[in-house]
Amino acid sequence: METTTSERIVAAASKLFYGEGIRRVSMDAVAEKAGVTKRTLYYHFKSKDDLVAAYLHGRDQPNLALFAQWFAGTEGGLAEKIRCIFLKLAQSARHPKWKGCGFLRTTAELASMPGHPAMKVGAAHKKKFENWMRLLFEGEGIAAALPLARQIMLLLDGSFAVTLLHRDASYIETAGDAAYALVKAALASRKCNEVEPLDVSRQ
Amino acid sequence: METTTSERIVAAASKLFYGEGIRRVSMDAVAEKAGVTKRTLYYHFKSKDDLVAAYLHGRDQPNLALFAQWFAGTEGGLAEKIRCIFLKLAQSARHPKWKGCGFLRTTAELASMPGHPAMKVGAAHKKKFENWMRLLFEGEGIAAALPLARQIMLLLDGSFAVTLLHRDASYIETAGDAAYALVKAALASRKCNEVEPLDVSRQ
Repeated sequence: METTTSERIVAAASKLFYGEGIRRVSMDAVAEKAGVTKRTLYYHFKSKDDLVAAYLHGRDQPNLALFAQWFAGTEGGLAEKIRCIFLKLAQSARHPKWKGCGFLRTTAELASMPGHPAMKVGAAHKKKFENWMRLLFEGEGIAAALPLARQIMLLLDGSFAVTLLHRDASYIETAGDAAYALVKAALASRKCNEVEPLDVSRQ
Repeated sequence: METTTSERIVAAASKLFYGEGIRRVSMDAVAEKAGVTKRTLYYHFKSKDDLVAAYLHGRDQPNLALFAQWFAGTEGGLAEKIRCIFLKLAQSARHPKWKGCGFLRTTAELASMPGHPAMKVGAAHKKKFENWMRLLFEGEGIAAALPLARQIMLLLDGSFAVTLLHRDASYIETAGDAAYALVKAALASRKCNEVEPLDVSRQ
């Protein structure tokens, strides 16, 4: 499959931005890695800000698809499947080239620019994950589906941040245990509230 | 109280690094803000890397003291006191100048340099918080004190990351609820295991 010039540029930028950070990588470095002139680079992306946004946009669907695949590929109930996302993430975080979450690291670098286009792409990506969790919880009849979905996000994004700091992926597994416990508790409390309606017709 | 030149430099660097990020701030900018020459700046800090480490080192004790103060200043049991840390953090995150956790943002920027001196200061800071939690849990007789301490850290650092992304401090309160539930569950399971030893002398 042939890649377009634009795709080649985003692929080069992704490697560099994820590997080194946003501000450390110049547009010259991206052009060189992509094998294009600066003029061609700026023809496709009118600013570095746009290219940073395109980098995150390019990771949006593949990342969500990978998480969904990890979730679907596990035997067991909802709590087991959600824990599995953390276990698989821990495996990938043990790769020497792993450097945390590109979305969160970009956010951290751009903290002084809340309106930056990449911040919007990052926030939208994380909201998609949160909504996926919320729908799963609603589907299981959990009343506080939104807070629970947010707690899973907090544990997941905490996993990225803490593991990057300590270079210890076992934190992600510990986060998975917390997620498991919180989902199990929510499922159990749902069962307590599920009182069978009295069948008057049989009386 | 008179401040030393070194303290003035760290104070200026802290404002700039926390406000703008590490790589966006030049040594020239730090010298200018501190009101010293570049020569004086390099007399006190032989490299920017050292200054970044000094910036984080300067936040280590004050941050831990603030968390300890929030914890101690709350009525109630362990779970309530830990939740209070999150509630107070949410309050401070609503300040317009809040830009997340300086330790984590620095880590995110320096992800490609795991041996950077600032990474070590950051990791040591977070371990101190984790150890504080662990000791609290051990003091209450919770068996799995370390995993629980780490889960609190994951929720706390997740709070910083997610709130910075969405600019929505209510996530920190949601993290506090999760922390509360996990601590309560650990305390309750401890009580289940605490079987009074049979007093043989009275038989």
